[in-house]
Amino acid sequence: MSLTVVGSIAFDAVKTPAGERERMLGGAATHFALAASFFDQVHVVGPVGDDFGEQEFAILRTRGTNTDDVEQVPGGKTFFWKGEYADDLNTRETHVTDLNVFEHFEPKLSQASRDADVLFLANIVPALQREVLGQCTGPRFTALDSMDLWIDIAREDLVDVISRVDCVMLNDAEIRQLTGKASIVSAARELLEWGPTAVVAKQGEYGAGLVTREGFFALPAFPLEHVADPTGAGDSFAGGVVGYVAAHPQEDVDHDLLTRAMAYGTAIASFNVEEFGTERVARLTADEITARVGELQRMTHFADAPVALRG
Amino acid sequence: MSLTVVGSIAFDAVKTPAGERERMLGGAATHFALAASFFDQVHVVGPVGDDFGEQEFAILRTRGTNTDDVEQVPGGKTFFWKGEYADDLNTRETHVTDLNVFEHFEPKLSQASRDADVLFLANIVPALQREVLGQCTGPRFTALDSMDLWIDIAREDLVDVISRVDCVMLNDAEIRQLTGKASIVSAARELLEWGPTAVVAKQGEYGAGLVTREGFFALPAFPLEHVADPTGAGDSFAGGVVGYVAAHPQEDVDHDLLTRAMAYGTAIASFNVEEFGTERVARLTADEITARVGELQRMTHFADAPVALRG
Repeated sequence: MSLTVVGSIAFDAVKTPAGERERMLGGAATHFALAASFFDQVHVVGPVGDDFGEQEFAILRTRGTNTDDVEQVPGGKTFFWKGEYADDLNTRETHVTDLNVFEHFEPKLSQASRDADVLFLANIVPALQREVLGQCTGPRFTALDSMDLWIDIAREDLVDVISRVDCVMLNDAEIRQLTGKASIVSAARELLEWGPTAVVAKQGEYGAGLVTREGFFALPAFPLEHVADPTGAGDSFAGGVVGYVAAHPQEDVDHDLLTRAMAYGTAIASFNVEEFGTERVARLTADEITARVGELQRMTHFADAPVALRG
Repeated sequence: MSLTVVGSIAFDAVKTPAGERERMLGGAATHFALAASFFDQVHVVGPVGDDFGEQEFAILRTRGTNTDDVEQVPGGKTFFWKGEYADDLNTRETHVTDLNVFEHFEPKLSQASRDADVLFLANIVPALQREVLGQCTGPRFTALDSMDLWIDIAREDLVDVISRVDCVMLNDAEIRQLTGKASIVSAARELLEWGPTAVVAKQGEYGAGLVTREGFFALPAFPLEHVADPTGAGDSFAGGVVGYVAAHPQEDVDHDLLTRAMAYGTAIASFNVEEFGTERVARLTADEITARVGELQRMTHFADAPVALRG
């Protein structure tokens, strides 16, 4: 089986309290692919410029990821983002967003990418997400990410594409913005009415929640003594979740499968933020992931010990 | 066995997106006692004014709570707080803080309160918390809460009293402010070096974390479709946690016991915020708590299902 991701490939300049990088490989599709490639063959669809070299392609191809649909635009420059994180790492300021080749990106999927078993639509213009869905030949599971900008300026398209996917993965604040509801549970239940079977609410340092028609699940983030760079955490998380689904082609994608998937996404995202950009996940091992999922299980478990209550 | 809490008893005026109350019973000791009384005999120590009537005493005495040490100051007025919550319920603005009789509060504990097995020092001046500790005859477990104000203006006293208790329960932001560390794990480990054996980090709508020398535990908040009034959530949570400890006099207060305690605290706090002030917890039943703890266990559980990872 295989998994296709469509989204940004970028160079990032990032400053955090832990240090600074002037130019490193980034982008949603990149972080997603590095995580998802632990689970299945990944096809990356996204644009880069002439400045994107063999070194960057080599990182993208980690664990056999296919880059045939990485479109290198002649004379173009790769998407560039420059940002700086505050001391608490929870807020960030964007200094530069040069869309470059990403501005006129028109996803063209090869037959192999169209035939993928599982599809992830990273954060791009909702109309393009719908266009990609139309190119695909019937994936078993589809998920999407988005952002506040599209909720503001392309809400109708976004609502439409949400109605066509199985799973929505957004930040808490975006879910509230999209629905106008303060309660994440109520907001997620409204999203379910639009069509998807699952809503994953990303909560940054606090972890993530899952709402399906079967119920609710919540998983805290893995606690870290040191966070170097939060960039890409959400995309690594998505790569782990969607990759885990892709690795279980015989199972229904139900509440139970997604809870296990979220544990893997949470584990990989926690490694992602330990170092800058792709540095940590590029050299991550399967054993390290398995061990961290085990730790997550221990640190969320409490014994069922009923107590005699008064009154 | 018994449990003593020292802290504020108040009248609150609260406005939230769900509604408004002009004057209702509140205060840290009140919310704490209502929760803790499910587990053990509670003694409340705190000041009230002439305006505190039989109706309020009756609520305080729910489930047999002892109010012999509620000092009614002749001619005084009860602590009054007026605040308003923003639409997302995560931020609040204080409009009025009339300390009244709370301003010159000098805790005087009866012998029964001094002899309690477990002691909770709610958020009061750190020097008074130390003074109360000195009056007690050797509780098996002591915990405290505090606030940003004391970190700002009475840091030395606060650090000193922290060194004398078993458990510190603070908000994430307060833990960061107190230690200057961005990582809650690192910050909590620093607090452990000061003396306590446990640090509970309260994270509002996201739940709570526990750090001990034995490890880390995290529990999400119980997901609610509707939150009426977040006031007192942290104190109900503390009442559930500390109450659960009091209900287990034969057990060491170790990591495992505190994880179970946090499940009860989380369950009771979730009921607290469903209605205004003490309305919901005053008529809460033991069965409702037990059922919600069970739901918490289900919604945090994921199956241990190893997957063959690539690479």
